[in-house]
Amino acid sequence: MRLSNYFLPVLKETPAEATIASHQYMLRAGMIRQSGAGIYSWLPLGLKVLRKIEAIVREELERAGAVELLMPTIQQAELWQESGRYEDYGKEMLRITDRHDREMLFGPTNEEMITDIFRSYVRSYKQLPLNLYHIQWKFRDEIRPRFGVMRGREFLMKDAYSFDADEESARKAYQKMFCAYLNTFDRLGLTAIPMKADTGPIGGDLSHEFIILADTGESAVFCDSALLDLPVPGPDFDFDGNLETELEKRTQYYAATEEMHDEAAFQEVPEERRLSARGIEVGHIFYFGDKYSKPMNAMVMDQNGKSVPVQMGSYGIGVSRLVGGIIEACHDDKGIIWPKSVAPFGVGIVGMKDKTGDVSKACEKAYETLTAAGLDPLYDDRDERPGVKFSTMELIGLPYMLVIGPKGLEKGIVELKDRATGEAVELSLDDALNKLTAE
Amino acid sequence: MRLSNYFLPVLKETPAEATIASHQYMLRAGMIRQSGAGIYSWLPLGLKVLRKIEAIVREELERAGAVELLMPTIQQAELWQESGRYEDYGKEMLRITDRHDREMLFGPTNEEMITDIFRSYVRSYKQLPLNLYHIQWKFRDEIRPRFGVMRGREFLMKDAYSFDADEESARKAYQKMFCAYLNTFDRLGLTAIPMKADTGPIGGDLSHEFIILADTGESAVFCDSALLDLPVPGPDFDFDGNLETELEKRTQYYAATEEMHDEAAFQEVPEERRLSARGIEVGHIFYFGDKYSKPMNAMVMDQNGKSVPVQMGSYGIGVSRLVGGIIEACHDDKGIIWPKSVAPFGVGIVGMKDKTGDVSKACEKAYETLTAAGLDPLYDDRDERPGVKFSTMELIGLPYMLVIGPKGLEKGIVELKDRATGEAVELSLDDALNKLTAE
Repeated sequence: MRLSNYFLPVLKETPAEATIASHQYMLRAGMIRQSGAGIYSWLPLGLKVLRKIEAIVREELERAGAVELLMPTIQQAELWQESGRYEDYGKEMLRITDRHDREMLFGPTNEEMITDIFRSYVRSYKQLPLNLYHIQWKFRDEIRPRFGVMRGREFLMKDAYSFDADEESARKAYQKMFCAYLNTFDRLGLTAIPMKADTGPIGGDLSHEFIILADTGESAVFCDSALLDLPVPGPDFDFDGNLETELEKRTQYYAATEEMHDEAAFQEVPEERRLSARGIEVGHIFYFGDKYSKPMNAMVMDQNGKSVPVQMGSYGIGVSRLVGGIIEACHDDKGIIWPKSVAPFGVGIVGMKDKTGDVSKACEKAYETLTAAGLDPLYDDRDERPGVKFSTMELIGLPYMLVIGPKGLEKGIVELKDRATGEAVELSLDDALNKLTAE
Repeated sequence: MRLSNYFLPVLKETPAEATIASHQYMLRAGMIRQSGAGIYSWLPLGLKVLRKIEAIVREELERAGAVELLMPTIQQAELWQESGRYEDYGKEMLRITDRHDREMLFGPTNEEMITDIFRSYVRSYKQLPLNLYHIQWKFRDEIRPRFGVMRGREFLMKDAYSFDADEESARKAYQKMFCAYLNTFDRLGLTAIPMKADTGPIGGDLSHEFIILADTGESAVFCDSALLDLPVPGPDFDFDGNLETELEKRTQYYAATEEMHDEAAFQEVPEERRLSARGIEVGHIFYFGDKYSKPMNAMVMDQNGKSVPVQMGSYGIGVSRLVGGIIEACHDDKGIIWPKSVAPFGVGIVGMKDKTGDVSKACEKAYETLTAAGLDPLYDDRDERPGVKFSTMELIGLPYMLVIGPKGLEKGIVELKDRATGEAVELSLDDALNKLTAE
């Protein structure tokens, strides 16, 4: 993309309302714009990152056998009256009345609706197991939305729902998602620690939150630091194999959020590994059995010909929140440092001013070559001072910056700078392009 | 995808509420499920088609220089009060009050919001032209939603907005979208006819609807049939070149919707080319100048240093409606016949029952080969009668069906059937796979 054809409204000043790094940088880098309390427009740069996260979440879920559908944002009140949550949910639910005075709501989550879809079509254990997910905008009318996309009101969430005929198989479904989540967060460049969690309004007896560590995290967390170094299951993991072992590797170590914290147990962790920190919840998984299927009468015939309520779990990932979460984990005082897997562009090209036109020619060559190689470069072709271009590139945090100037070109060299390490190397344009395309 | 791992809840009976082919087939093929009046869940098969349409719309817009962002579904009433449309819009606008009693609404369209984004960042003609688009769920509280996704309440729309410093450039922006739309619909397997249209509540002095012909269309349309045979601009079209000529190729022929129909002018069309039919609106483009920029004070400095209201146009495509529109144009009495570009899977594999296991082995080989070739096959591995499998495949309308049976295998042959032509050829499995992967 040529910057002159793009829409990247970078701000010089940090808006006063933003108090944490991710919120500040997302506003300054022209990634989002607030349109109401806790409601944001995703400007082109922000949307690109959001879509990359979404794609990784999707791939890892499908690897674990989940199937995608898409439920609407607007739901009927009747379904929530069936489960008993319509009154319970309180003021966080955005309630809506249509022109015919029907009670509706903007979905904050979808347990009821997916249970309704399930019971309409599935009758037998032979059609199970099933894991259905969607990635859709939700709305929770937070009393005090804050921290930008980290605690917004309209937010993008991936929610998956598993259906099984018996508890043993349902626990396997839970374990599959546990492993898929480890892979997902790892690919996003994050170290996420699963922590035993309270089941809250979703209900059930088994639940883990996936937490990333960041000073600005909303909750205090306590864990064994050994958890930070465990390898994830990885792309070749067999989701039909031994899931239990993969879980036990982690659950053997202490890890709990504030609500579930047991100080005595924590004290048993060797002191040098006792980690007390702040964390950001980026995923949450629940096994809740028949909590929804029973009141909503979602029954299946089991292997013995008996009609039983289907066993369910639900699995959430805060997709839009992750954009902020990744920035909280990956930034310095100049701006964002994107992990390569979610960087909005693969490399930035900055041309210095020149009189001969040689710099433009070299930039064009770099742009064409890198585009053809699928690196999706962002070429700053604006008529701006080098300082402005450099600070824009550092702010938006692309993995590499290729700097081409007239003096260097005379000597046959360009500069290739690594955003994460800050290292700059001088080399010929061809070598720089080869290095980038070989990645 | 193996059907045993998928969620494809095909219905045997046609639901009584569905009166047109697309609605009937979308329900029967397990593409959608109604969750409320005019509100649908997109089941896996339906979502795949929706995403393919979305991807084509996106590609063709970006080829014409548009840049994607994403605005939220929920908007603040204040913006609509600024433009004067808050009261005008009437009961089709879904009005919402949040917990703090703030007036909000579920966006039915985004002229106001995009104008607000524009005025926050853009000050000079140097930053123009600009065309920003998003693909987002909208809500219009239709008094009588009907025909499935053709006239739903929650629907997916692509809306683009162009910004230019003067009228000449703004009309070019309009022409670019006109050409991009021709390419888009062509790639979707549709013949869309641009027709001069009334500007309605959007306003402005120039507008075209893009209409596809179908007996179930909601509006009567009148045109010169010469329009049906005109080639589209195509993938190599130069969007910076002569746009005018491309438009005139079409506007020289008579074409109008009922509201704009001029019977006298129509009578001048040679009788054999005088086409009076029913049509479905799949796109609508508007040039409306400063209708929003003036009241909302979206000003830019022009080349003469004068502050002027920015010239705007808006450009919609009904993405979810197109799923229905394509089916209306492409079906027979057995089911859907997807154009290849939007087919949910490239080919279906049907194995007949056998005792030796040879059929399963051959099916597996076909499945692996076609998957590796990127054809995204759907393998019906269920334990069902051949008749059930055939009728499912015909209903869901994949371009090809590969039928593998024990008798054929003994003779070394399989059957490859073309859904559109109904033609079946017998050939060896390897030849069938080569034929498919060579496409």
